[in-house]
Amino acid sequence: MQLGMVGLGRMGANIVRRLIRAGHSCVVHDANAAPGKALAAEGARNAESLAGLVEALAAPRAVWVMLPAGAVTEAMIAELADLLSPGDIIIDGGNSFWKDDIRRAGVLAERGLSYLDVGTSGGVWGLERGYCLMIGGDRAAVTRLDPIFSALAPGRGDIPATRHRDDRAGTAEQGYLHCGPSGAGHYVKMIHNGIEYGMMQAFAEGFDILNNAGSARLPAEQRFDLDLAEIAEVWRRGSVVTSWLLDLTAEALAEDGALSGFSGHVDDSGEGRWTVEAAIEQATPAEVLTSALYTRFRSRQDHTFAEKVLSAMRKGFGGHQEPKKPA
Amino acid sequence: MQLGMVGLGRMGANIVRRLIRAGHSCVVHDANAAPGKALAAEGARNAESLAGLVEALAAPRAVWVMLPAGAVTEAMIAELADLLSPGDIIIDGGNSFWKDDIRRAGVLAERGLSYLDVGTSGGVWGLERGYCLMIGGDRAAVTRLDPIFSALAPGRGDIPATRHRDDRAGTAEQGYLHCGPSGAGHYVKMIHNGIEYGMMQAFAEGFDILNNAGSARLPAEQRFDLDLAEIAEVWRRGSVVTSWLLDLTAEALAEDGALSGFSGHVDDSGEGRWTVEAAIEQATPAEVLTSALYTRFRSRQDHTFAEKVLSAMRKGFGGHQEPKKPA
Amino acid sequence: MQLGMVGLGRMGANIVRRLIRAGHSCVVHDANAAPGKALAAEGARNAESLAGLVEALAAPRAVWVMLPAGAVTEAMIAELADLLSPGDIIIDGGNSFWKDDIRRAGVLAERGLSYLDVGTSGGVWGLERGYCLMIGGDRAAVTRLDPIFSALAPGRGDIPATRHRDDRAGTAEQGYLHCGPSGAGHYVKMIHNGIEYGMMQAFAEGFDILNNAGSARLPAEQRFDLDLAEIAEVWRRGSVVTSWLLDLTAEALAEDGALSGFSGHVDDSGEGRWTVEAAIEQATPAEVLTSALYTRFRSRQDHTFAEKVLSAMRKGFGGHQEPKKPA
Amino acid sequence: MQLGMVGLGRMGANIVRRLIRAGHSCVVHDANAAPGKALAAEGARNAESLAGLVEALAAPRAVWVMLPAGAVTEAMIAELADLLSPGDIIIDGGNSFWKDDIRRAGVLAERGLSYLDVGTSGGVWGLERGYCLMIGGDRAAVTRLDPIFSALAPGRGDIPATRHRDDRAGTAEQGYLHCGPSGAGHYVKMIHNGIEYGMMQAFAEGFDILNNAGSARLPAEQRFDLDLAEIAEVWRRGSVVTSWLLDLTAEALAEDGALSGFSGHVDDSGEGRWTVEAAIEQATPAEVLTSALYTRFRSRQDHTFAEKVLSAMRKGFGGHQEPKKPA
Repeated sequence: MQLGMVGLGRMGANIVRRLIRAGHSCVVHDANAAPGKALAAEGARNAESLAGLVEALAAPRAVWVMLPAGAVTEAMIAELADLLSPGDIIIDGGNSFWKDDIRRAGVLAERGLSYLDVGTSGGVWGLERGYCLMIGGDRAAVTRLDPIFSALAPGRGDIPATRHRDDRAGTAEQGYLHCGPSGAGHYVKMIHNGIEYGMMQAFAEGFDILNNAGSARLPAEQRFDLDLAEIAEVWRRGSVVTSWLLDLTAEALAEDGALSGFSGHVDDSGEGRWTVEAAIEQATPAEVLTSALYTRFRSRQDHTFAEKVLSAMRKGFGGHQEPKKPA
Repeated sequence: MQLGMVGLGRMGANIVRRLIRAGHSCVVHDANAAPGKALAAEGARNAESLAGLVEALAAPRAVWVMLPAGAVTEAMIAELADLLSPGDIIIDGGNSFWKDDIRRAGVLAERGLSYLDVGTSGGVWGLERGYCLMIGGDRAAVTRLDPIFSALAPGRGDIPATRHRDDRAGTAEQGYLHCGPSGAGHYVKMIHNGIEYGMMQAFAEGFDILNNAGSARLPAEQRFDLDLAEIAEVWRRGSVVTSWLLDLTAEALAEDGALSGFSGHVDDSGEGRWTVEAAIEQATPAEVLTSALYTRFRSRQDHTFAEKVLSAMRKGFGGHQEPKKPA
Repeated sequence: MQLGMVGLGRMGANIVRRLIRAGHSCVVHDANAAPGKALAAEGARNAESLAGLVEALAAPRAVWVMLPAGAVTEAMIAELADLLSPGDIIIDGGNSFWKDDIRRAGVLAERGLSYLDVGTSGGVWGLERGYCLMIGGDRAAVTRLDPIFSALAPGRGDIPATRHRDDRAGTAEQGYLHCGPSGAGHYVKMIHNGIEYGMMQAFAEGFDILNNAGSARLPAEQRFDLDLAEIAEVWRRGSVVTSWLLDLTAEALAEDGALSGFSGHVDDSGEGRWTVEAAIEQATPAEVLTSALYTRFRSRQDHTFAEKVLSAMRKGFGGHQEPKKPA
Repeated sequence: MQLGMVGLGRMGANIVRRLIRAGHSCVVHDANAAPGKALAAEGARNAESLAGLVEALAAPRAVWVMLPAGAVTEAMIAELADLLSPGDIIIDGGNSFWKDDIRRAGVLAERGLSYLDVGTSGGVWGLERGYCLMIGGDRAAVTRLDPIFSALAPGRGDIPATRHRDDRAGTAEQGYLHCGPSGAGHYVKMIHNGIEYGMMQAFAEGFDILNNAGSARLPAEQRFDLDLAEIAEVWRRGSVVTSWLLDLTAEALAEDGALSGFSGHVDDSGEGRWTVEAAIEQATPAEVLTSALYTRFRSRQDHTFAEKVLSAMRKGFGGHQEPKKPA
C-alpha cells in the first residue's frame, strides 16, 4: 500500500522504514533535504516539495504528518488540505491535543477529506518492537489503512493471551486499536502518557527512598547501603512491579548506580498537562497523575517563589532565619 | 536440603510445594491440622506441634515462619527461639516491619541464633512463576540457605538480560537477592510495595478518566464512549506502560469492563504506610506513594469528617447549603 | 453616583443596599420581578426591562452585571452592549473566567464601551462587612467608578496597618484594588479562591485527625476524646492559625461538634479549577491547591472507578477479595 | 504564684517576663549564665544550678521546662525528677512528641510527680500578644496552675465572641485549654502546626502563581504584572482568606515584593512530620498537610535522586537528553 509521510524526524523516518520493510511504498518529504535522501537510499521515494509528494501519490491518497504538535502541525495540515482531493486521508501521528483533532476533522470533512488522529507509542524502540497505535476517526478511513497500521504495530508476539478474551475479535492484540471518533486516538494516547508519568514517579520515589536509606541523618543502626542496580534487577523476576519502565531503570542503574550523568531537570510534554485538564473537566480526582506532573515542574527551578513565601512567614511569626543552604 | 515451615496458609503451603518439587525436604506445622495433612500427602512431613517440628529437623536447623506480621509472628519467633539451638536459623518470610527485624536479629544473635528477613513477592502466582525474594541478614546464613532461595526464585527464565550488566555476578538475575544486614530484606520489600501502590494508582486514575470520558457532564461533542478492555489490551504491546499490573488490569476488564463485582473499598497493608514513614524519616518527598495510600484510606469511608468541615465553612461564609447528594 | 444593577440575587441585591446606604443612586433590574420591587421599597429605582434600566441611567452609564458566570453573563453583556452608548461602562462582578474578560473587553472596546472585571469577595457578610474588590480594566473607568468601589469596600476599619507600608498610597488598605488590565481582577479573585480552597482543606484535615484521635482502631492508651469546638475556640487567640475561616469553623462546631447536619458532599466552583489550569499553564507546582480541589471531586462520589481498578488488580495478583464494606 | 523555669531561650525568657508582669514570682535557670542574669534584673530570681532552682521553690513546686524537644528535654526531665518531691509538677512547654508525654507521665506518676504537656503557640509575639496554650495532663495539676496559664494566655481581648457558644463556660475564650490527659496538649499543638503548614503552603502556592502570571512563557496577551504586596493588603479586608498568616505575608511583601532576602530553603520541625504519622495511624487521608511537608523537604535539595531516575527512564524509552539547566 502507498503512504505519504511528511516530517522525517526520528519517529517519521523509522515509521517509513518499518513500512518499507513490510513491503509498503512510501513517498516522503521533509523541510530538510537530508533525511529524505537517506530514506530514498532505503527504498522510499523522496519528494522535494509538498506538492510533489501529493502528485506522486495515487488517489485516494493517505498522507501521514509526523511533526511537532501545535502550530507546526496545524499549518502543515492546512497546507495539505489545499493540495489534496476529496476522498484523501490525512493522518496526524504526532502528539496533538485531542480537541484540535475534533475541530480539524470537522473542517476537513466539509472538504471531503478524512482525518485520523493516531497516538503513536514506541519512541526509539518502535522500528524494531513496533508501534502501539491508538486511532481516532471514521471507521471507513481506519479500515482502508488497516494494512499500514497492521505493519506498524508490534503484532501479537510472544506475549501471552489475556484470560477472558477468548471470544474477542479485533486488532488490540496486534497492538493497534480504533478507539473511537476523531480525537479518541490522541485522547487514549494522552491518558497513556498520564499513566506513564505516574508510574515513572512511583519508581522514582521508591528508588529515591532506597537511595537515601543510608543517609547520615538517620540513626546509624537504621541505615542501609543498598545496591539499587541489584534491587532493580531482582524485581524484574516474579515481583508485582515488573514492567518495561523497570527494565529501563535497571539498565540505567546497571550503567551507573548514581545516575550521575543526569542533572535532575525533567521536561514534560503536553499530554501530562492535558491529562490533568481532562480530569478536572470531568471532576475526576487524579492525585497521582498530577503530582507526577508537578514534580517535573519543580525539578526545573532552583527554588520556587512559594518557598520564599514560606520562609517569609516563618520569619514573621517565629523569627526563623532560614539558612541559605542546608547543613 | 531440609527446611521447617511454620504457617501453612496459601503462601506458606505453596512455598513448601515449590521446594518439594525442587527436591527439598520439608517439615511443616500449622495451628490448624488440615493444611499439614494435605501437604503430607504431597511429600512433606507434618509435625503436630512446634516442638515436634524442631525435633524432626537435623541441626543446624532452618525454620521459615510464614504468619501474619505483627503479634502473631512475634510470638512464634519467641516460642521458636526457646526450642532451637545455637547455629539454627529463623527465617521470617512475612511482611514484618523492618525495625522489628533489626531488634529481633539482635536479640536472637545473643542466643546464637541467626535471623533472616525475607521479603517475598509472588502472591497466588508464586507456586508457578516463582517468588521474588529480598533477603536481609548475615551473609553466612544467607549463603547456607542458597539452595532454598534458588529453588523458590523464578530463575532467569526468558526475560532478556539487562544491558550494561555483563560483568555482574550474583543472584539478582535469578530473582533473589541478599540486600544487606537484618531488616534490609523487608525494607526493600516495603519499598517494592510502596512503588506497587503508586503504579496501581496511576493505572487506576488513568482508567477512571477513560471511563468518565463519556460523562454527561461534558459537552456532547467532547465525549467518548471508550472500550477500556480493548485499550488495556492494546497497551500490552509496544507501549511504555507495559507491565504485569497492566496485564492483570486487562484481564479484569476483559471479564467485566464495568468491574461491577468490586465495591471500591480498598484495603492497605503495613508496607504502604511504612514506606511513607521511611520517606518522612529521611525527609524524602514521596507525593505519589503517599497519595496512593490516602486514596485507599478514603475509599473505606462514606464521607470524611474533613468534608463536613468544608461544608460547614462554605455555609458560614457563603450561605451554601450542600445538597445531600449530587444531582 | 448612579449605578445600574442587573441581577438581584443575594449578592446583587446586597450590593445595591450597601450603595444606597452610602448615598448612591441605583437603578435595578432582574428577570424576576420580586427582588426589584423589594429594593424599590428600600430606595432603588426598579426597571421592568433591561432597556428601561438603560434609559433610566444618565450617560455616561455604568451597569453592574451580577449573574452566574458563563452563558448567562455572556448573553447579558451582549444584550447590554446593544443598548449602551460609547463611553458607558459594563462591570462584571460575578465569577467569570479571566480569559473571557480579556476577550470581552476587546470586543466592547471596539464599540467604545469600557469593561471592568470585578472579583467580589464577601458572600453573605458583604452587606455589613463590605466587599473586598479586585478590579481589572482601564484605569480611566476604574477611576470614574471610585466612589462606587469605595462605598462597597470594607474600608480601613480597626485592622492594624501593615508594617513597612508607611509610604504607600492607594486603595488596598480600604479593601479594593485596581489589579491591572482586563482579566486581572478576576485572575486575582480566582487565586484568592484557590488559596481559600487550600486553607479550608488544611483546617478540614486537621479537624479530621483530631476527630479520629479517639478511633477504636488506635491502641487504647493512645486515644484522645477531644472537644473540637473548644480547640477551635482556643486557637482563635494567640495561635498561628487565627483566621476568619477558623472563626467560622469554631461557630459551626459550637453549634454541633459532630457537624451532623452536613452530608459531606462538597461542591466546587470554577475558580478552584481555573487556578489549577493557570498553574499548569505556567508550570507552577500547586500540590495543595490541587489536592483541595480533588478532595471535593471525591466527596461527591460513592466510589470512584479508580478504586474498583485497584481492587481488581489486588485480586489479580494477590487473590484479595475486597470486603463490600469496612468492618 | 511561684514557678520555676528551666531553659531561658527566647520562648522561656519571654514566658518568664509575661509572668513577672502579671505579678507572679519566677525562679529561673539556664545552662548559660547570661539570660538568667538579665531576667534577674527584671525581677526573676536566678539559680546557678538546677538543684538551686529546686531549693528556691516552695513545695509543692511547679517547674516549667522550655528546651529543645527530644534528648535535651528528656535528660532534663529525668534530672529534675531526681530533685523534686511527690506533689511537685513538671511542665514541658516545648514541642515534645505526644507519645513521649504519655510515657513520661506514667513514669513520673509512679514517683508521685505530675507532668503537664503544654503546647505553646505564640513565637516571638507571645510576650505582647500572649501565648495560646494547649494543655494535657491530670485535671488537678492543671487546676492548680490556672493562675499561671491565665496570665500567659492572650485573654479574651477584642475578638468577637463565637456564635452558639453562649452557654459554654471554660477557658478556651481566654486562649488556654485543658485538652485531655497526658499527651493531649502536644497532640493538639501538633495538629495546630500541621494545619499551619497547610495554610502556609496554600498562600505560598497562590502567591507563586500570581508571581508567575507575567511569565514570558505565557502568551503575551495573557500575562499580568501583578503587585503582590498590594494584593496581600487588599485581601486583609473583607476577603475569605483574612488571617494572621496573611498579615505577616503582607508585611513581608511590603518590605520586599520579590522576597529576595530568602533563599527558598525551608526547614520543618517535628510537628509536621508527626501530624502525617498520626494521620496514617488513623487511616485518615491528609493530602494537603502532607504535601505541605514534602514541599519543604524538596526545598532543601538541589535535585532529588527521583528526578534523575525520571530522566534516566526518559532517555531509555524516548532518547530524551535532559538539558543540564532549563532555558
